Amino acid sequence: MTGTLEALARELPPGAVSTAPDELRRLSRDRSGQRPDAPPLAVVRAASADEVAATLAWASARLIPVVPRGAGTGLAGGATAGAGSVVLDLAGMNRILAIRADDGLAEVEPGVITADLDRAARAVGLRYAPDPASAELSTVGGNIATNAGGLHCVKYGVTGDAVLGLDVVLADGTRLRTGRRTVKGVAGYDLTSLLTGSEGTLAVVVGATLRLLPTPTRTGTAAAYFATPEAAAAACAAVLDAGVRPSVLEFLDGRTLEAIHRLRGGPRPDGQAFVLAQTDGFAADAEIAAVHAVLRRTATRAEFTEEPEAAEALLATRRLALPAVERLGRVLIEDIAVPRSRLAAAVRSISALAERTGVPIFTFAHAGDGNVHPLVLAEGQDEEAVRETVDEIFRLALRLGGTITGEHGVGTLKRAWLEAESGVEALRVQRRIKEALDPLGILNPAKAI
Amino acid sequence: MTGTLEALARELPPGAVSTAPDELRRLSRDRSGQRPDAPPLAVVRAASADEVAATLAWASARLIPVVPRGAGTGLAGGATAGAGSVVLDLAGMNRILAIRADDGLAEVEPGVITADLDRAARAVGLRYAPDPASAELSTVGGNIATNAGGLHCVKYGVTGDAVLGLDVVLADGTRLRTGRRTVKGVAGYDLTSLLTGSEGTLAVVVGATLRLLPTPTRTGTAAAYFATPEAAAAACAAVLDAGVRPSVLEFLDGRTLEAIHRLRGGPRPDGQAFVLAQTDGFAADAEIAAVHAVLRRTATRAEFTEEPEAAEALLATRRLALPAVERLGRVLIEDIAVPRSRLAAAVRSISALAERTGVPIFTFAHAGDGNVHPLVLAEGQDEEAVRETVDEIFRLALRLGGTITGEHGVGTLKRAWLEAESGVEALRVQRRIKEALDPLGILNPAKAI
Repeated sequence: MTGTLEALARELPPGAVSTAPDELRRLSRDRSGQRPDAPPLAVVRAASADEVAATLAWASARLIPVVPRGAGTGLAGGATAGAGSVVLDLAGMNRILAIRADDGLAEVEPGVITADLDRAARAVGLRYAPDPASAELSTVGGNIATNAGGLHCVKYGVTGDAVLGLDVVLADGTRLRTGRRTVKGVAGYDLTSLLTGSEGTLAVVVGATLRLLPTPTRTGTAAAYFATPEAAAAACAAVLDAGVRPSVLEFLDGRTLEAIHRLRGGPRPDGQAFVLAQTDGFAADAEIAAVHAVLRRTATRAEFTEEPEAAEALLATRRLALPAVERLGRVLIEDIAVPRSRLAAAVRSISALAERTGVPIFTFAHAGDGNVHPLVLAEGQDEEAVRETVDEIFRLALRLGGTITGEHGVGTLKRAWLEAESGVEALRVQRRIKEALDPLGILNPAKAI
Repeated sequence: MTGTLEALARELPPGAVSTAPDELRRLSRDRSGQRPDAPPLAVVRAASADEVAATLAWASARLIPVVPRGAGTGLAGGATAGAGSVVLDLAGMNRILAIRADDGLAEVEPGVITADLDRAARAVGLRYAPDPASAELSTVGGNIATNAGGLHCVKYGVTGDAVLGLDVVLADGTRLRTGRRTVKGVAGYDLTSLLTGSEGTLAVVVGATLRLLPTPTRTGTAAAYFATPEAAAAACAAVLDAGVRPSVLEFLDGRTLEAIHRLRGGPRPDGQAFVLAQTDGFAADAEIAAVHAVLRRTATRAEFTEEPEAAEALLATRRLALPAVERLGRVLIEDIAVPRSRLAAAVRSISALAERTGVPIFTFAHAGDGNVHPLVLAEGQDEEAVRETVDEIFRLALRLGGTITGEHGVGTLKRAWLEAESGVEALRVQRRIKEALDPLGILNPAKAI
């Protein structure tokens, strides 16, 4: 350990600073496939806000880049930690400090696993609504860093919609609180929203006040197959136009259905697209009946149920989608969002793109949000063709008036595309904000903006 | 007109710059009761983003403060324009540029009257959910500047929840776009949320992309009287705990009921507190029945209905509250928010405060959000006692873990209290952001932060 690191180690509990090569390797990357240029200097396992503050003050004094880290489930390279940097591992700060049922909120440390928070809330009749696919693995802090989405966003919003306030440490080690414990409040600038989704580049989250909601009394589930992706996309739009507020509205394309069929066998799928919808709350039954009425108008087959067991059977197809595709080899999980009316156009264009480049693409969508996940199969494909395919997906998103990332973040992967989406002036303002909060540029440099 | 103003007038259409004393007077104040120290230099009536940009570039070059203005319905002094400043009146930029029903969004200029946007949306089966009490008078731009709330926030969120993207002009005249046309998106920092609620101190909004929602199919309305404010507050909490998502959940205290009784006569109110609830959407009937079941458990009288005419009768009491109090003379409309569980404590403490200082206070609350509006009757009262009463209301909000402003903003009125709420470090970060976006400090100086 160098003298510089020893100075930090002396300020922290024994064992908090590690330079073990296997740890440097394991904790310097996320699930994006991005690799650091070289191992980081060290990993710091923080157990408290004070330790985070000490680490940042130490790093600021020495201009050492700090890469905050939750569970490393990010898909955009936001937690990639390269030469000369220190990984600040927050996974150990994993206490649920309070669940205040009467105020409908929780106070947590950043390393709490998202699904653990939801389970703790359910124990008192509440729930934590944001549910990224990684919820069993990812941390609340990581979810806040990327403003993570999930299946239930269409009704309950993204992570940011559940964040009432944050405890953070600035790059120089200063601690501050943003936001409040009330649902409403407009005193001062909305620092909470500014920090949420900033991918660890503005401050390190050491605590969060999160909104909890009542557990829904009932749930309804519907599923339908369609002859074409266009028909499925149109049906999704019609569900929303009917005034239904589904808690889940998911789309799978024909290629994904084929992969699921190959995985589980049985009868072939009844079409080239699949829609899964759920409703919950007091209107669950009435709403799922309305959803079914809309879907069956144009579906090749449609079913609905309010029975949990029958619902599980309908959900299974959606659940198998990712495993079915991932068993084919390495896939890049892209994450564009388009205005709702362009969902069909996006799916059609992605399908045509796969034909043209020869690179297989499996498309899922959180249809209610226009958030499309094209899974690009990289395994065994020409690298140049894969890169061109991914680039074309970004171009398509912007051409359709959408965004290059609906819920995964920019990280290192999409930085080159940010100016094309945001424009040079908006990016300039973001850089000015970065300089205002982190003038030395030590917080997760070269990420997010 | 001075040479400085003539330079601006030459860049703008004839008549855009006015120095008429009655206009300077009328357009240099809002509804807060705050008065400018002296009239501003001029009023600029902008008709386009280019004219806004020209005005800001002109002002930046000469270090002239600019006070952006919508309809002047603000209650915190945010649009107060004093000596040496120029009022930038955006009320004339009032075009609804597009309603995109298929994407569930509208594109508007900032001067559109909020209720006009809602009516335009309803013409195509949609609605604009944010509904500040001033909706028939206030502008969308002003609502964005204060992140305005309203009755429906409890289900549909505040103005910021409806803002997908903004067109803005920076202090130096640079134009940029923030956000997007998609529901989800996490590319770059959330400038949209940062600017929403910044009270014209960071940029001038010249356009907005706003989310529209389907018009609810049904509505249910319930009203109940309670023997004590505590019983009413507890009933409101029980409604939310039952998993109902009311679209309206309002509270009136006994003193307000008495004022309404004096206005309309008839039988005396059946208690010392009143609760009004509405539900909407597919579950409206089931939810209002559940609300009624909760309310009648502890109410002295409770009613509910799904019939529009009967609903109007129940709504009338809430509607009469403000007129009934305002006819008593000049009132200060305060605006604190507390954690939901502290609603009863807040109401009780405010009542005790009125007893102690002798200054009458009439309390309404958006109970579902913990957002309490104590109306302090200033008419005929000792000024010092009024000031002490208002200060004590702010102290109370902070003591209960709440905020000094739930939906009206800080403006000039509450600046002295901001540090007590936010802490010195959060305020310092806000000032750094202000400097990053408006380095010369010309945009609505000495407001909001």
